[in-house]
Amino acid sequence: MTTIAVDAMGGDDAPASVVAGAVLAAQEGYLSLLLVGDEPRLRSELANHPAVPGIRIIHAPSVVAMDESPSFVIRRRRDSSIWRANELVKAGEADAVISAGHTGASMATSFFLLGTLQGVERPAIATILPTLKWAAVLLDVGANVDSKPHHLVQFAIMGHVYAQRMLGMPKPRVGLLSIGEEDTKGNELTKETFKLLKQTQIDFIGNVEGRDVYTGDADVIVCDGFIGNVALKISEGLAEAIMQVLRREITQSLFGRLGFLLLKPAFRRFKRRVDYAEYGGAPLLGINGVSIICHGRSSPKAIKNAIGVARDFVRDDVNRHIRDDIERHVELHLGTAN
Amino acid sequence: MTTIAVDAMGGDDAPASVVAGAVLAAQEGYLSLLLVGDEPRLRSELANHPAVPGIRIIHAPSVVAMDESPSFVIRRRRDSSIWRANELVKAGEADAVISAGHTGASMATSFFLLGTLQGVERPAIATILPTLKWAAVLLDVGANVDSKPHHLVQFAIMGHVYAQRMLGMPKPRVGLLSIGEEDTKGNELTKETFKLLKQTQIDFIGNVEGRDVYTGDADVIVCDGFIGNVALKISEGLAEAIMQVLRREITQSLFGRLGFLLLKPAFRRFKRRVDYAEYGGAPLLGINGVSIICHGRSSPKAIKNAIGVARDFVRDDVNRHIRDDIERHVELHLGTAN
Repeated sequence: MTTIAVDAMGGDDAPASVVAGAVLAAQEGYLSLLLVGDEPRLRSELANHPAVPGIRIIHAPSVVAMDESPSFVIRRRRDSSIWRANELVKAGEADAVISAGHTGASMATSFFLLGTLQGVERPAIATILPTLKWAAVLLDVGANVDSKPHHLVQFAIMGHVYAQRMLGMPKPRVGLLSIGEEDTKGNELTKETFKLLKQTQIDFIGNVEGRDVYTGDADVIVCDGFIGNVALKISEGLAEAIMQVLRREITQSLFGRLGFLLLKPAFRRFKRRVDYAEYGGAPLLGINGVSIICHGRSSPKAIKNAIGVARDFVRDDVNRHIRDDIERHVELHLGTAN
Repeated sequence: MTTIAVDAMGGDDAPASVVAGAVLAAQEGYLSLLLVGDEPRLRSELANHPAVPGIRIIHAPSVVAMDESPSFVIRRRRDSSIWRANELVKAGEADAVISAGHTGASMATSFFLLGTLQGVERPAIATILPTLKWAAVLLDVGANVDSKPHHLVQFAIMGHVYAQRMLGMPKPRVGLLSIGEEDTKGNELTKETFKLLKQTQIDFIGNVEGRDVYTGDADVIVCDGFIGNVALKISEGLAEAIMQVLRREITQSLFGRLGFLLLKPAFRRFKRRVDYAEYGGAPLLGINGVSIICHGRSSPKAIKNAIGVARDFVRDDVNRHIRDDIERHVELHLGTAN
């Protein structure tokens, strides 16, 4: 049975919503969950829910504060829930770790304790975006800045595997996020990366512009973490702003309010389509282990779905496929170099 | 009277929508418009509209094709409408030029023919985004890639002047687009730029994350053109995708359709709020002249509004204010260096 270590203290509503999400996941069965955090608090949180088998508490006395730097966490917070949860994976007591806490600290801890897969220099955070067709994988959305072209090639290979294994896409089309479709458009990083991606065995469809991200024409979209983070956050901010303006406009008249009432089911279906909670957490791809990063504002449902992502990631042995594809890529290029 | 050279052949719907937009602008009076392009075609287009004073046709035999490189345009397309329109500004026969054609060719031609203002190394395209409060200036959205920190400082000073003069903001708050609020967050470019911006006389509020772009907490948001272009295009793509999904959801049931009917005025008001056409074109700031870049899909209304932007830009002598502020900044730093 898959065992997942859950940082129960991380997230805006932790531990309440994390514990609630873990209970939801445990109710579906076939999982062993290790809730890592302050034992008395977790015990009393759990008491608010019906008892389910498969949940165990692992005590960790401290919590990483949002203003603590990742390097401080590595040096001084080895008794924290994030650190302990990652240690369980390193020790082989858990197959995966999930955290909705301090993203930088989660990444740094997983990177430091678990290391990277053979051939991967830098891990990347992969997120799933809803598109007009279905969904696309965007990576990196913030694990790295100032990436080099060969890092982006590694991200492309990892994202390709992730789309195949986790989204069931047999032959994902991989695009490079840039500012024009022609290979001559972009910055130094993308122009160099373009050349390298053409030499891989993945289905590289060329540059993808910002306005094509949500059309669904690319299944995997590769970029540096600075760009990806701005792209992701601006999307979240804009979607929220649009809904807020629309709501304000709608409630300004009686007809508007009546119309809104009639449209409520449609709005709800729509929200579900674009709701990040549906997609759960974002994996830190390339780590020698399974580490899933959740949004700080994760609801219980988002936590449950992130636990599902972790379980599938382990079950489908995504890391073995990443290792294989990276190795094949390296061999191909050592071969042509000689 | 202000004279504006209009590239009548540039844009997806050119010359029809450009001519229609010019006619709308001319109907408001106090303007002299030079429509630059194929004379017979423009003459027959104009015949579709009621005659208005203030419009003159300047013949240009060729049109820049979308797949021609900016350097090709500079070498071989000196008889094109873009080139001729810019030449009119250089010769002092027009005060400003607007084009909805090939953005790269427009920028390159203005840069090549008109040069930059004293102290400005690179021009930047500034666009106006709607926010929850009102509006914000985002720059650069695509004139440059791989910018250096001191370029971003120049963009900040130019964006600050633009917000003051064109949006009537007395003391615009300037933010640096990055991936975390602390000054230690970001990439090499933003970390170095952060330090430089703290030494300017503008109201620098620090890093702004993607999700804060649409809240309206910053009035001017500064970034490299690659980032800004991705941010702008992804916003356009997402807004379109959201409206499309919402429309699809809404028309799926009778209640939905009835509700939609009742909400139509609200949707229309909303669309107006986020419609780029309302804001007209985006100026190429830093050029020694006035050059306004329009969206390729500009409607007649968007063209009319872009002409209005050009007129206000000339009338308020925005370039003089940019020159003054850049000069003051340079003096301040030469002063402290000694």
